[in-house]
Amino acid sequence: MISPSVPRADRPAEAPRRGRPGHDLESVLAVAVGIFNERGYDGTSMRDLSARLGIAKSAIYHHVTGKEELLSLALDRALAGLSAVADRARALDAPAVERLEYLVRGSVEVLEAELPYVTLLLRVRGNTRVERAALNRRRAFDRFVADLVREAQRDGDIDPDRDALITARLLFGLVNSIVEWYRPTRRAATRPLADAVCAMAFDGLRVRPG
Amino acid sequence: MISPSVPRADRPAEAPRRGRPGHDLESVLAVAVGIFNERGYDGTSMRDLSARLGIAKSAIYHHVTGKEELLSLALDRALAGLSAVADRARALDAPAVERLEYLVRGSVEVLEAELPYVTLLLRVRGNTRVERAALNRRRAFDRFVADLVREAQRDGDIDPDRDALITARLLFGLVNSIVEWYRPTRRAATRPLADAVCAMAFDGLRVRPG
Repeated sequence: MISPSVPRADRPAEAPRRGRPGHDLESVLAVAVGIFNERGYDGTSMRDLSARLGIAKSAIYHHVTGKEELLSLALDRALAGLSAVADRARALDAPAVERLEYLVRGSVEVLEAELPYVTLLLRVRGNTRVERAALNRRRAFDRFVADLVREAQRDGDIDPDRDALITARLLFGLVNSIVEWYRPTRRAATRPLADAVCAMAFDGLRVRPG
Repeated sequence: MISPSVPRADRPAEAPRRGRPGHDLESVLAVAVGIFNERGYDGTSMRDLSARLGIAKSAIYHHVTGKEELLSLALDRALAGLSAVADRARALDAPAVERLEYLVRGSVEVLEAELPYVTLLLRVRGNTRVERAALNRRRAFDRFVADLVREAQRDGDIDPDRDALITARLLFGLVNSIVEWYRPTRRAATRPLADAVCAMAFDGLRVRPG
């Protein structure tokens, strides 16, 4: 098993700090993502943001040009994490099924580390230019997953009778479903969540004989 | 493999037909569920519904007492389908792992047959009495799944080292994730979606040796 634990340097860079004491861009972004996830991006106004932050709208405009830039920064953060994992999976000198498992494991880790940002990414509907761009990057990621499934089928590691596209969708449906219930706790989990996901997806629930 | 194909008589009964020609309760409900899924229940007004249906609000009140009754009827329809599958799984004379697979298979079939209704159920947040009641029934369903996982672990059919609750959440996370991408087509699928879900969840992707 190849562990994809994300090296520090590969984590998405923290947003540059501009602005005045009390609220830097990083904390404005965190609050914005929280409200976007609660009410939906369309349902959130700059007035809602300023009320939640307890600062004037002008103080938010000190950091960003508006709501859409906050969305863009938030989605970039989720996508940067997932792209970094995909790049490392692509570069791995291992059979396709192992690159696929590396990708699943790394994606679960990004999801845990960047939960609100990935949650927002998964709820994007594509109404604005920024959302459509994010959806296009998600689709490229999905194609990469389906390609790995097909390659693993040619290698004889995944049953060639399975539909590659449906398999890819189910696999990342399983990964993405974690945002619906996972909440980080301070105490360390007894076992990494990524292990549970890979065990179900690659080995199945039913005990293998022998 | 035990097939849980839902007998006609067990399908949730169609809503009783009251009202005037053009829109019966069934079609009002279908339109309401579509808008609730698009805009969220909170974001939909009776005015939105009347505009979409092309009838006066008073004509909607001819069928139901208001928005909350539409939500209640819609959630009942999804829950009735899932409860019927759970009841049949419970009554099955088979090992726990087979009852669990029956439950997964039947849930995928309900999800396909009642896609907009199950989608609405999965997005419920619990802000109203009706939503909280639906969430309670979903939680009871989740406990039933976790109990089946534990029983299958005692039988030696699922590895006892796996966390039963996380396994249950992942399993139904996988099932529920289908609402994010599945769209029914008129042409019959080459293979039932439920087969693909059960193959991944119970047998895993990696080809078993032998």
